[in-house]
Amino acid sequence: MRNRPFRIALAQADFTVGDIDRNRDRVVQLIAEARDRHVSLVSFPELALTGYPPEDLLFKPKFIDANLRALESVRRETEGITAVVGFVDRQDDIYNAAAILSDGSCSIYHKQYLPNYGVFDENRYFQAGQESSVFHLDGVTFGVNVCEDIWYPGGPAREQSLLGGAELIVNISSSPFHDGKGLMREQMMATRAADHGAVLAFCNLVGGQDELVFDGGSLVVDQTGSLIARAPRFEERLLVVDLDMEAVFRHRLHDPRRRQEKQSAEGRVPTVQLGGAPNRRPEGPTDNHPPIPPTFEPSDRLPDVYRALVVGTRDYVRKNGFEKVLVGLSGGIDSALVAIIAIDALGVENVGLVTMPSRFSSDGTKSDAQDMADGLGATLKTMPIQSVFDMYLSELADEFEGHPFDTAEENLQPRIRGNLLMALSNKFGWLVLTTGNKSEMSMGYATLYGDMAGGFAVINDLYKTLVYDLAHYRNSLGDRPAIPPSIIERPPTAELRENQFDTDSLPPYDVLDPILQAYVEEDRSLQEIVSLGYDEKLVQRIIRTVDLNEYKRRQSPPGIKITQRAFGRDRRLPITNRCREY
Amino acid sequence: MRNRPFRIALAQADFTVGDIDRNRDRVVQLIAEARDRHVSLVSFPELALTGYPPEDLLFKPKFIDANLRALESVRRETEGITAVVGFVDRQDDIYNAAAILSDGSCSIYHKQYLPNYGVFDENRYFQAGQESSVFHLDGVTFGVNVCEDIWYPGGPAREQSLLGGAELIVNISSSPFHDGKGLMREQMMATRAADHGAVLAFCNLVGGQDELVFDGGSLVVDQTGSLIARAPRFEERLLVVDLDMEAVFRHRLHDPRRRQEKQSAEGRVPTVQLGGAPNRRPEGPTDNHPPIPPTFEPSDRLPDVYRALVVGTRDYVRKNGFEKVLVGLSGGIDSALVAIIAIDALGVENVGLVTMPSRFSSDGTKSDAQDMADGLGATLKTMPIQSVFDMYLSELADEFEGHPFDTAEENLQPRIRGNLLMALSNKFGWLVLTTGNKSEMSMGYATLYGDMAGGFAVINDLYKTLVYDLAHYRNSLGDRPAIPPSIIERPPTAELRENQFDTDSLPPYDVLDPILQAYVEEDRSLQEIVSLGYDEKLVQRIIRTVDLNEYKRRQSPPGIKITQRAFGRDRRLPITNRCREY
Repeated sequence: MRNRPFRIALAQADFTVGDIDRNRDRVVQLIAEARDRHVSLVSFPELALTGYPPEDLLFKPKFIDANLRALESVRRETEGITAVVGFVDRQDDIYNAAAILSDGSCSIYHKQYLPNYGVFDENRYFQAGQESSVFHLDGVTFGVNVCEDIWYPGGPAREQSLLGGAELIVNISSSPFHDGKGLMREQMMATRAADHGAVLAFCNLVGGQDELVFDGGSLVVDQTGSLIARAPRFEERLLVVDLDMEAVFRHRLHDPRRRQEKQSAEGRVPTVQLGGAPNRRPEGPTDNHPPIPPTFEPSDRLPDVYRALVVGTRDYVRKNGFEKVLVGLSGGIDSALVAIIAIDALGVENVGLVTMPSRFSSDGTKSDAQDMADGLGATLKTMPIQSVFDMYLSELADEFEGHPFDTAEENLQPRIRGNLLMALSNKFGWLVLTTGNKSEMSMGYATLYGDMAGGFAVINDLYKTLVYDLAHYRNSLGDRPAIPPSIIERPPTAELRENQFDTDSLPPYDVLDPILQAYVEEDRSLQEIVSLGYDEKLVQRIIRTVDLNEYKRRQSPPGIKITQRAFGRDRRLPITNRCREY
Repeated sequence: MRNRPFRIALAQADFTVGDIDRNRDRVVQLIAEARDRHVSLVSFPELALTGYPPEDLLFKPKFIDANLRALESVRRETEGITAVVGFVDRQDDIYNAAAILSDGSCSIYHKQYLPNYGVFDENRYFQAGQESSVFHLDGVTFGVNVCEDIWYPGGPAREQSLLGGAELIVNISSSPFHDGKGLMREQMMATRAADHGAVLAFCNLVGGQDELVFDGGSLVVDQTGSLIARAPRFEERLLVVDLDMEAVFRHRLHDPRRRQEKQSAEGRVPTVQLGGAPNRRPEGPTDNHPPIPPTFEPSDRLPDVYRALVVGTRDYVRKNGFEKVLVGLSGGIDSALVAIIAIDALGVENVGLVTMPSRFSSDGTKSDAQDMADGLGATLKTMPIQSVFDMYLSELADEFEGHPFDTAEENLQPRIRGNLLMALSNKFGWLVLTTGNKSEMSMGYATLYGDMAGGFAVINDLYKTLVYDLAHYRNSLGDRPAIPPSIIERPPTAELRENQFDTDSLPPYDVLDPILQAYVEEDRSLQEIVSLGYDEKLVQRIIRTVDLNEYKRRQSPPGIKITQRAFGRDRRLPITNRCREY
């Protein structure tokens, strides 16, 4: 029993995959900062030393060696404090592990539940841990576990709290964002804390890594399931929280289930006595707020999704060593949204805009592109494609003679644009951002090596309907709309032939998008989707088109995961696929 | 004890992913054929009903339903015979399973060892089985297991043979090809059969599926580890083999280890009595050959690799519904090899050849391309790129003013070629084959959206040195060389500027390739590679270049896995990767 607060800190920071030396330096710096703020226990995210996910770097023995050396450096920096640090342990095999470093000592926990679904492949690399120990520090008993471990009611936290007597559970995570994940996570954490009658401290990674954005949102939930502190999402923060361990003790004392279980299991969970916490009353400001019950209302999704796009873009560009990006601005809504995301991520001085009209481009789209650039204070290069297009057509005239104008001629136009952007990219070292959305990528309504040419596909996991919502949302933020309303209002068109509209080839997006979501993300069958009220022939055509275009998606640059199931590593379908079981 | 032979058949056939109805029909047809040939037990490959690997199709409930319905149809076709059929079972979860169908009855085995490394992700989908039963059929005791199960000395075959008394182990597999795999597999099977003192019948899938080629090579090894029958590789075959079970019985009788183990374990392995084998002496020809000890000499690798390339190309093209392919013939060795592979796979009438010279193309390459096409009786379209190239340069002149000719101008040329090929592809429905090799793909010595544009990357897992070996090999097959010797002899060049040679940018391929192999396939460190006798600065530059070009490979079309570790699903590295631990 202790009557002074127990101060913890959650170091929600951005650790880059492979950048072991810098990750180590950042850990050491944050430990020092926590010590200055009288913290007893500071926690870092899962695999903080290697970055997450390291993927097949884990097969390189030197990479594991380097991360072990980094851990050893960190251990020497834990005088008078306890730090929980994610790293890769090597024993008989390798483990996704947490080191509990305390005043120079080192204990180790191995992750027990290895996710091997969705974007995760942890069984490919790690052996699962077996042992759930607890630690005594300055009168407080706590358990440590890693990410997935906390998602199972019967996971190690149960053993640690009910059998080991842990009053505090520290969960270190690298839990990536998807739309709605924040709420799911908070609800689960609140349930888990109340079930175990223990404080739960969840420390999450932040920052973009290829397709993934880690959204932070680290939090502390008390023994009743109320939220007592929460870090902001999508940015770094050392969250400092004082815990009232006396209240936890009293709460647990009055829970007969807990008393009973504990008595019957006395001594079954290994316990480790730690030094490293200065036995004194902490001072200075904290991030505590009054306890609030967990919310079960979806938060406003648009700001979250928008920030994920900005952070994902910023980090892909910066962590890959680029300064500037290039966006082809067509005068349509997709490229307009990508341009403003890029500007918010990198600053207007780092975003090059190029418009490449053809004879099919309307005056409206041309002037809209210019208006948008002007409004943002950006320079817009104009590079017409007509003369190159005509030259291709003349070279192909013999071959194409007698054949009508079709997708061959249509696709040439975005391919010329792709070539021009890539020529600028090669000459000046700018990264090209592509502008396709998920509705288009699902249906193959995009040109390989054309509008799909580029290094990063910013919005390729946004359905078109969400593109519109985000355009409106972003326009609501400033004094004047960043995206000219006429861009938002114009009926969508690829402008690759006269009077072309998306609806010539696709159903209206408000019909298409829910069908795509049901099929792509939820594995609903044809009949299940039809029973939602859609035309059977239409649904069948959509499903078939999605399946047939897997080959295009396979050659797409990576983009930012926004939905529950993005294309790519999240959804692994064969190209050669004769399945017609809808 | 029985003194007449026990006849089995291994149905080494090509089952296509997702094509459940046709796969079922093929199984039924082969069961009938086996029955006509007096076979008691016929075996099919792993997941024959769904094709392998079905990947995320396994998440669709309708897909599992359809495969269960197909199994039920097959069950009704097993009058008087026993068939072992790979399918997906659904109980509490889904299992990679073998059905033992016998005269209308159905028993089920669940795969116990789920591979989750290399190209395999089976933990993503399946629950592992627990039980190793054995079956009695017409006086013979046999056990069944699935692929990976047989690769572990302590796997289910041990329990089945030593404790369950199985005299025959049937292993159903979908084991993909890589260079050297055939020998590895035979050696392992021989060891396993001799260890367990049982006949081992290994039935493998055949045919191409996206990046993988299943090479067949089904075989039967007797209880001493000698090979008694082997199906050809890379083609379908119903391999019919008579087993001398009397000899197996005598062999096991004299093995004290086996007697002992069996006595101590009597009854511990569940046994199932089957009907379904006609109790009579089989007649007619078999594929038995006199027992030969397993070879421990590497077979001639070039014919194997070449056939893998031909089968992989043929099946990707055909199973995706294409008739014809298009190859850009530069006059260099890579495109020459791809052209002849395509012709061997699809027939000369289905391969369109296009040469697209620029002002940097030498007379030699131009005439070589023509000579090769003439020699093969193929038509060669010529589409010069100079006028389109000049038009691009004029459009870019303002932007590029004052900057020297560099990769921007170089890359434009293959991109124009890519556009022309794709224009023909879009107009006429021909699949474009790309021609890059593994040495180039490793080093990023290829142009995204240029020579990397196309649907299938035939030789992207062949190092350049192997490209030469295969060119010589293929030339040795005919009366006259299919690839003109001058193509093989010319120093490699991309011909994207005056007097350019690959060696301007890359070390000689006989130096580069072993370094790449050590780094990419074997995860050797810088120091380990240097200790093989290479210059440290050079090795460091190569490693760094391989790492930096991950983004290009991510946008490559799929190609055929030939090496132990191909790029793609076999080697999963982050693009955002600051690892410098070599």
